[in-house]
Amino acid sequence: MTSPSSKPISEFELIEAFFKSKAKAMGFSDDSGIVMGIGDDCALVAAKAHEELTVTTDMLVEGRHFFSDANPEWLGYKALAANLSDLAAMGAKPLGFTLALALPQADSHWLESFSNGLFQAAKEFSCPLIGGDTCKGPLNICISALGTVAKGAAIKRSGAKPGDQIWVSGSLGDARLALAALRHEIDLPADQLKIIEARLHQPTPRVALGIALQNFASAALDVSDGLLGDLQHILDASQVDANIFLANLPKSKTLLRQSQALQDQCAANGGDDYEICFTAAAENTSAIEALSKELSLALTRIGEIHTPASTEAKITLIGRDGQQWSAEAGAKLMQSFDHFA
Amino acid sequence: MTSPSSKPISEFELIEAFFKSKAKAMGFSDDSGIVMGIGDDCALVAAKAHEELTVTTDMLVEGRHFFSDANPEWLGYKALAANLSDLAAMGAKPLGFTLALALPQADSHWLESFSNGLFQAAKEFSCPLIGGDTCKGPLNICISALGTVAKGAAIKRSGAKPGDQIWVSGSLGDARLALAALRHEIDLPADQLKIIEARLHQPTPRVALGIALQNFASAALDVSDGLLGDLQHILDASQVDANIFLANLPKSKTLLRQSQALQDQCAANGGDDYEICFTAAAENTSAIEALSKELSLALTRIGEIHTPASTEAKITLIGRDGQQWSAEAGAKLMQSFDHFA
Repeated sequence: MTSPSSKPISEFELIEAFFKSKAKAMGFSDDSGIVMGIGDDCALVAAKAHEELTVTTDMLVEGRHFFSDANPEWLGYKALAANLSDLAAMGAKPLGFTLALALPQADSHWLESFSNGLFQAAKEFSCPLIGGDTCKGPLNICISALGTVAKGAAIKRSGAKPGDQIWVSGSLGDARLALAALRHEIDLPADQLKIIEARLHQPTPRVALGIALQNFASAALDVSDGLLGDLQHILDASQVDANIFLANLPKSKTLLRQSQALQDQCAANGGDDYEICFTAAAENTSAIEALSKELSLALTRIGEIHTPASTEAKITLIGRDGQQWSAEAGAKLMQSFDHFA
Repeated sequence: MTSPSSKPISEFELIEAFFKSKAKAMGFSDDSGIVMGIGDDCALVAAKAHEELTVTTDMLVEGRHFFSDANPEWLGYKALAANLSDLAAMGAKPLGFTLALALPQADSHWLESFSNGLFQAAKEFSCPLIGGDTCKGPLNICISALGTVAKGAAIKRSGAKPGDQIWVSGSLGDARLALAALRHEIDLPADQLKIIEARLHQPTPRVALGIALQNFASAALDVSDGLLGDLQHILDASQVDANIFLANLPKSKTLLRQSQALQDQCAANGGDDYEICFTAAAENTSAIEALSKELSLALTRIGEIHTPASTEAKITLIGRDGQQWSAEAGAKLMQSFDHFA
């Protein structure tokens, strides 16, 4: 719906200036593949002949993905980080991103802070802003990111094979634990919350890991909706089963102080981890352990892939006592985060 | 914010099924450059060595870009058409698009209708859905589209040169006239509204024109926010001035029945036209006239590019009497649609 405006300098232009000026200041390298960034009907990208492009999109909505009083700097960082995590899960190197932003009003303090966080992530992972759109509306942040990967080298969800080991990066469950505390679902001392809160608000996309995994991983995805629910996507795409050893799920010291039940819930089914879960042939174990040292990033074996017992690809949970969990107990834990719940 | 869900089949899965199944049914050709569509962390695209990719994103918000009771089929069509129009303005051929969708609830009738309109446009312009994201939230539709263009052949805003002629496709102002009627800003007989309403609800992206213009146009953009405001972007990027002959603006028979003032307002400053405004050297005139016949699409000369009189690139309006409009009269007409107004 169009309507003429009589303001000589509009809030719309203010926003344009915010993001455009920062994108211009950041720039992009000559060999980035970006021919033209912000400022025309489209951005222009020249892919190299030996590369493929990866494309992903994520929408963040107030009340679903963040609190209404969320720190805008964290929000800007996280919005891009979530997309970079998808690129990493394919083994791709970040190339650039577009931002579409609906805002209830153009608040320059909010915008300054949001764009600071956004460009902090953009610089940290060399992923420039190449295009966008802004409009007035309920707060909504939609980022689409592009990455590059060597031709045929993208790590898909469909490559897991019986005998492969299942790995996960970093640690699981802290973001969900922090959310539980912030929602007053649990009591967590302020000093403990302080330690893990960054995992919820400023997750680290595992970009370097993803790129390195091209050489080792048979399948991968990023854990954004909960480990078990996300792993199920690999099983479905690869048509395999999996055993998961609950005792092996990597947890922070803070999470390890919680009850066993809460530990399992957060680590196995918490959202917003943004770790990479991948499968790899057993022969790659020492190479993956060496990679873990090189990146100073924990990589933990948490299970193994099996020949499917039926057409329905299935996860079997193995408890600390070495016994299989019942289907009922497993089902309870395996309900993944549903963005529409 | 994550929360466990207990529903075995979720509304989220319903949506996934709606769009995934239609995307799968539509498919994509082997030579499309799409290596992998929906279903992994990212889509995979292989650009050809002699091509560049164009990337654009548009966000549509209820109350800003469409009425809350908008026909969802029209909405689906228009959401993709608006992005295809941006691709066309660069001279690009559609390659594929991602859809991020926030919905207040998963209404299967709405979704069926919306996805019908969306895929109608997708099929009409051979632009498959290759990825997406859905979540619960105030209605928001964000599409990012990719296109391909021969290396170096993209039509930028910055190429207009003194002596070039200014052209526009189709006719201008019908969408704004229809909006004015629907908003009861003006009285328009129902039969007249019926004729022009499609221009507002189901605009036609000028894809074939855009591709053909690679050979003729020095600069181009799509007219989405109003001709004069959009043309200003070409002038700013090219650092040139322009004369626009108001009498030459192409108008439908329906618009021509309105008062002169309303005609000018709608044609010169109405939004949502989705026509292509382009500049071309005078020597291309007969080729452009031939192209118009070939495409059965009006292409009208509406002005000319001049050496800039100052550092501020400027449009001069020429009235029906051949006289320049005053700066004040011009300024009034030249206020472009502001998405943040």
